[in-house]
Amino acid sequence: MVNSKVKTEIINIGDEILIGQIVNTNAAWMADQLNLNGFSVVHMATIADTKEAIIQALRQASVRADVVLLTGGLGPTKDDITKQTLAEYFGTNLITHKKILQEVKDFFASRGQSLTPTNRRQADIPANCIPLSNPYGTAPGMWFEERGKIYASMPGVPIEMKNLLSREIIPRLREKYQTEHLVHQTIMTHGLGESHLSDNIREWEEQLPNHIKLAYLPRPGIVRLRLSAVGNDKTKLKQEINQAIHDLQAYIPDLIYGYDDITLEEVTGQLLSRQKKTVATAESCTGGAIAARITRIPGSSAYFRGSVVAYANDVKEKQLGVPPSSLKNHGAVSQPVVEAMAEGVRNRFKTDYALATSGIAGPEGGTKEKPVGMVWIAVSSGAQTVAREFHFGNNRERNTELSVLSALNMLRKELIGD
Amino acid sequence: MVNSKVKTEIINIGDEILIGQIVNTNAAWMADQLNLNGFSVVHMATIADTKEAIIQALRQASVRADVVLLTGGLGPTKDDITKQTLAEYFGTNLITHKKILQEVKDFFASRGQSLTPTNRRQADIPANCIPLSNPYGTAPGMWFEERGKIYASMPGVPIEMKNLLSREIIPRLREKYQTEHLVHQTIMTHGLGESHLSDNIREWEEQLPNHIKLAYLPRPGIVRLRLSAVGNDKTKLKQEINQAIHDLQAYIPDLIYGYDDITLEEVTGQLLSRQKKTVATAESCTGGAIAARITRIPGSSAYFRGSVVAYANDVKEKQLGVPPSSLKNHGAVSQPVVEAMAEGVRNRFKTDYALATSGIAGPEGGTKEKPVGMVWIAVSSGAQTVAREFHFGNNRERNTELSVLSALNMLRKELIGD
Repeated sequence: MVNSKVKTEIINIGDEILIGQIVNTNAAWMADQLNLNGFSVVHMATIADTKEAIIQALRQASVRADVVLLTGGLGPTKDDITKQTLAEYFGTNLITHKKILQEVKDFFASRGQSLTPTNRRQADIPANCIPLSNPYGTAPGMWFEERGKIYASMPGVPIEMKNLLSREIIPRLREKYQTEHLVHQTIMTHGLGESHLSDNIREWEEQLPNHIKLAYLPRPGIVRLRLSAVGNDKTKLKQEINQAIHDLQAYIPDLIYGYDDITLEEVTGQLLSRQKKTVATAESCTGGAIAARITRIPGSSAYFRGSVVAYANDVKEKQLGVPPSSLKNHGAVSQPVVEAMAEGVRNRFKTDYALATSGIAGPEGGTKEKPVGMVWIAVSSGAQTVAREFHFGNNRERNTELSVLSALNMLRKELIGD
Repeated sequence: MVNSKVKTEIINIGDEILIGQIVNTNAAWMADQLNLNGFSVVHMATIADTKEAIIQALRQASVRADVVLLTGGLGPTKDDITKQTLAEYFGTNLITHKKILQEVKDFFASRGQSLTPTNRRQADIPANCIPLSNPYGTAPGMWFEERGKIYASMPGVPIEMKNLLSREIIPRLREKYQTEHLVHQTIMTHGLGESHLSDNIREWEEQLPNHIKLAYLPRPGIVRLRLSAVGNDKTKLKQEINQAIHDLQAYIPDLIYGYDDITLEEVTGQLLSRQKKTVATAESCTGGAIAARITRIPGSSAYFRGSVVAYANDVKEKQLGVPPSSLKNHGAVSQPVVEAMAEGVRNRFKTDYALATSGIAGPEGGTKEKPVGMVWIAVSSGAQTVAREFHFGNNRERNTELSVLSALNMLRKELIGD
């Protein structure tokens, strides 16, 4: 439940959202940032780029909220009428702001372009606003204080909106409302779904002090646990959060793989870099997705040497050295085959570690003994090769995602000697 | 611009959206479906799960719109108060609906579970509504006609909402408002960004009849062109759309790869299946992402044999047979090396076709001669090996995505003999 005291409302102006052309990711990002900073969001509206819709939305928001944040409708063309409408709403006029005009000139000069009359209009802003610099674009942000309420307007381009909200608007809101200190910490877990995880840590959760809140943020294969503490003594809040995390570790020692939105590919990459070790993958059902995930990290060439994606059985034999007898006697989705794949790629690519997968991704190809979603995953090091059987269910995309995460987690455990 | 006559408003009830925990993808999907069926969306609101917020949103929506669609707040627990609030808003009571009660019983019986008192409450609905069957869950949809307006309420779970909207609500709306016929066709293009594409087809666009609208729907590497025709004669509309597409082909013969949201991996997969050909990939900078993309398609094992991800140079030599002299003289990111990679994997994996990539994914590793974003891509067949140099810019994720799409498109062109 939303329980902060200062109420904010988000108004996104944009026909492209109303026609379903784009998903309104701006609203979610803004709401997350506002909540992280102690401001509740009581209402979000997406409206058309018309004077009537903007005026009505401003009026209705000013009844519900203390702070009204607008995005969109700030381009220099005639279609974008937000600025004129804001001026009218506040009973004032547009004036040319010299500092903003200079910034717009500089913006175009730095790109070797001169200022057109259309672009010059970016410096015209309502007389009652404080302009907010927008280094990523030409439309300035605008800050209004009227009749005991705050209004702030930003462009809808995500990078411009994000910079203005986090660098200009939220600091001003915090100063204005002197909110209490907020300390957050996110704990990253893998290995249990939300409901089972919640059962396992219920006792710990019930012992949390009242001013520390817990949020479950699930995504496929990962549950993030976000602790938020509110109070006047920041140092004490940090200590309390650290103590809570320390206590949590006793409940789910195997499930926590990191903090603060780190990914499993980042954690394993850091462990490999630190230990100066290398890895390769041999992938059947994941089809290269583990390699693709590992190489999303810049600099992964320091520890990742490569992969053999062995979709066909004779590729498993010839490129990985899987014994034909193993394939014949146990089938491709089996412990002997996945272990031979891991060992094969480790030897041929001369790496310290290797991961291998073999499973039934679906939707076809399942049998009673080997149903869709059954996946064998192996991790091989010089000392040992360990394989585990998983069952991920019927969805092909989800099977791949959970296989990738489970494989990376097996490598992580091997690297920390767990 | 939105120009349809029947105005709809979307109200999403959900604290998890207001706290920024989830992105409101429901609203975008609903808006797209409504627009595709000739209904405009004039306003979207996300509101808290409280009686006051729901009543206020309903009142304000009924002033703006002819049709008000609500999602969320329909679970059986005490927190979900949408049904009680709807009954209050319409001045009526909740009654137990026998048919819905039977459906809820059947739902749990089919899962071997008995009906709890909490779940039994799912069959209690406002006396003035027509219940709508929800085969994917236990909360029924609800349809109200009051004071000349339509109100429809759905659960917020996407699969339940989507089924109710497309199977129950939109057909009823079309029947009620007898909208004109609508014919849509989406043209998939790859190879030019939105603004250049728009320059190339401006003449064609200007010649489109007034009742045929064009929308540009861009995503990285792909621009979808959606044609929508409105009128009374469905057969004629289809003919006109077909004629428009026929005319378009003369302007951008190289850019159209398919229709109706088909992906490049689906197109190439269909071509390979039809021609009974096979493919393998040899990937450096894409790190397995092409293989992972190809194997997203169920049944891809019929034509995809595997991949060598060769991140390290000696893997390129040993697993793909790239001559050490090519690597030494030209560097890994070069035409000779990417061609040798493609030919190497084609020979070793015994496939008809092969794709290979080698580039600077970034953000590090660029030089003046070989900047970040420079990527060589090769396609090899029995007859020839063709390589092209691309420059995709500074963003690592975007470089990978554009490399994957460009490689698949080169394979597509090879397969159609272009």
